[in-house]
Amino acid sequence: MSTGIIGSGSWATALAKILTDNGQQVNWWIRSEDTIRHLQQRHHNKHYLTSVYFDTHQLNLSNRLHEVVANSDVLVLAVPSAFLEEVLKVLPPEALQHKKVISAIKGLVPESNQFINEYLADDFGLPLEQYFTITGPCHAEEVANEKLSYLTFSGLQLEETQNIADLFANSYLQTIVNNDVIGVQLAAVLKNIYAMGAGVAHGLEYGDNFLSVLITNCFREMQHFLEKYTTWAGPVHMPVTQHNYNASAYLGDLLVTCYSLHSRNRTFGNMIGKGYSVKAAQLELNMVAEGYYASKCIFEMNHEIGAYMPVARAVYAVLWEQLNAEEAFLALEKGFV
Amino acid sequence: MSTGIIGSGSWATALAKILTDNGQQVNWWIRSEDTIRHLQQRHHNKHYLTSVYFDTHQLNLSNRLHEVVANSDVLVLAVPSAFLEEVLKVLPPEALQHKKVISAIKGLVPESNQFINEYLADDFGLPLEQYFTITGPCHAEEVANEKLSYLTFSGLQLEETQNIADLFANSYLQTIVNNDVIGVQLAAVLKNIYAMGAGVAHGLEYGDNFLSVLITNCFREMQHFLEKYTTWAGPVHMPVTQHNYNASAYLGDLLVTCYSLHSRNRTFGNMIGKGYSVKAAQLELNMVAEGYYASKCIFEMNHEIGAYMPVARAVYAVLWEQLNAEEAFLALEKGFV
Repeated sequence: MSTGIIGSGSWATALAKILTDNGQQVNWWIRSEDTIRHLQQRHHNKHYLTSVYFDTHQLNLSNRLHEVVANSDVLVLAVPSAFLEEVLKVLPPEALQHKKVISAIKGLVPESNQFINEYLADDFGLPLEQYFTITGPCHAEEVANEKLSYLTFSGLQLEETQNIADLFANSYLQTIVNNDVIGVQLAAVLKNIYAMGAGVAHGLEYGDNFLSVLITNCFREMQHFLEKYTTWAGPVHMPVTQHNYNASAYLGDLLVTCYSLHSRNRTFGNMIGKGYSVKAAQLELNMVAEGYYASKCIFEMNHEIGAYMPVARAVYAVLWEQLNAEEAFLALEKGFV
Repeated sequence: MSTGIIGSGSWATALAKILTDNGQQVNWWIRSEDTIRHLQQRHHNKHYLTSVYFDTHQLNLSNRLHEVVANSDVLVLAVPSAFLEEVLKVLPPEALQHKKVISAIKGLVPESNQFINEYLADDFGLPLEQYFTITGPCHAEEVANEKLSYLTFSGLQLEETQNIADLFANSYLQTIVNNDVIGVQLAAVLKNIYAMGAGVAHGLEYGDNFLSVLITNCFREMQHFLEKYTTWAGPVHMPVTQHNYNASAYLGDLLVTCYSLHSRNRTFGNMIGKGYSVKAAQLELNMVAEGYYASKCIFEMNHEIGAYMPVARAVYAVLWEQLNAEEAFLALEKGFV
């Protein structure tokens, strides 16, 4: 199987490292010609994970998306969810026929609040059988350092999914396979909201005792939302009804995102808790964390789902309704168990 | 209700602070006359949480245990589990008649592997109805700093338990009440073993990604042990069959113990992971962490329970059977999900 990667951020770079370390030839779509030239000459991505060395014989670098897609049997999507539509819209509707598409994106499509697979089905007719996800607690920085990490691969058919996972498995990368391809996407979105909350709490100078109670309550809230969503969506849109919450794609990912200093969502929330406006935090960090958009997506989705999710609601109010963070948390405190 | 505290470590000192902040008069048993004298003259415990100021008018300090017990309706036990028998053996068997006893001890009685309530029933005829526990994610250091914390009070009868909890509730201390008085004790013991494991992993230079997967797997293992224990013990010894694992007394306490730098178990494990012997770590830290004894207690209990608990088993092997920590973790890695 020939593999392609779309995107050149830190996660895309980490995945390119894993695949090339495993001897794969990788077709890699990078938007910027300058980044491509630098990679060819200096053997590393000048913007992200700069310590990672690439043997350029293993890379077919290109900024022509058609070419990268046409040459790849398996495509890894690794651009921020907010940019996905813009990147893929140059492709004709039949471009993904017979392709296997792996989403490494941790977010929903903004505005439409669609899952990545829903968007790909609508715009490219991609059947769910050809769609896979990579989730799990995995900061790119630690992959760059070859620190042992675990990735969860999800897809409707377990055997196919195992084949995909096998492309990535190596001495520093353990793979886990399941068929919960919708559930893990929701968990990946929710956990970014909760990491924002953990960051806000830290910024407000709550301590470790409180943080552990907050995250415990977030974990319960995540499960509650998933249960309500599963019933609401029905078996066509949520084929798996039993989600293994005590696995790394759920609890593990929540923990690393809430606790790790590598977490951008946590850092963003921390600044909000310290009194920065969203705009100021964004300028300072030179990015908007996924949890910012995620809190709006989930807030809107939940109009129909009707899950009780006080923490996600509070994070939304702080980020989008200018509610004072201290007030928001004072109101939350009483309800925790 | 008149209250008494037995013990003068950091947790005992934090609980004395909470009760006196709430206007209670506290009978406080402290073994060392020197510590008592210092507290009377300088208004703080010279060894632990030295920043906490006490109004000595609210304290009846004594090193005569009979006196403290006789004067108190409610007794808080806050000595390390390893010393409990030695401390209480001076009391006559009828000393706890009509007393309410609150255990703030996070451990089992060594050698016999008894729960604190079992030991108190055997040696003092204390019925389970008069026994309560304080658990939850609560580092004493943060109580000293009045950082918002949550404590879980457990007892067979909820109304009585609520009355006990009300003695402690204040602006920096939220209370949660349940009747899962045996389950929470087991969780408190297990979490110290897992914090040792987290410390060992850190010492072996695993990263945040791995740590989150390890803790997720510990959480599942904890639940598995509790389920097996509940069936094995039967309704007399485990009256509550549904444990709310997604609450702060379970997951919350596990998280704070595994992640917080205040955690002594984590620190101890860290030294083991870095290659110190148990003896050397003990000398260096001037204490043995509860998780060291706990790993032996649970290992022995599990001969009968038969739960599958690879992480607890690995920690036991490293601490008590001189298994090389790196080898132990290499064997664990494969099984995580």
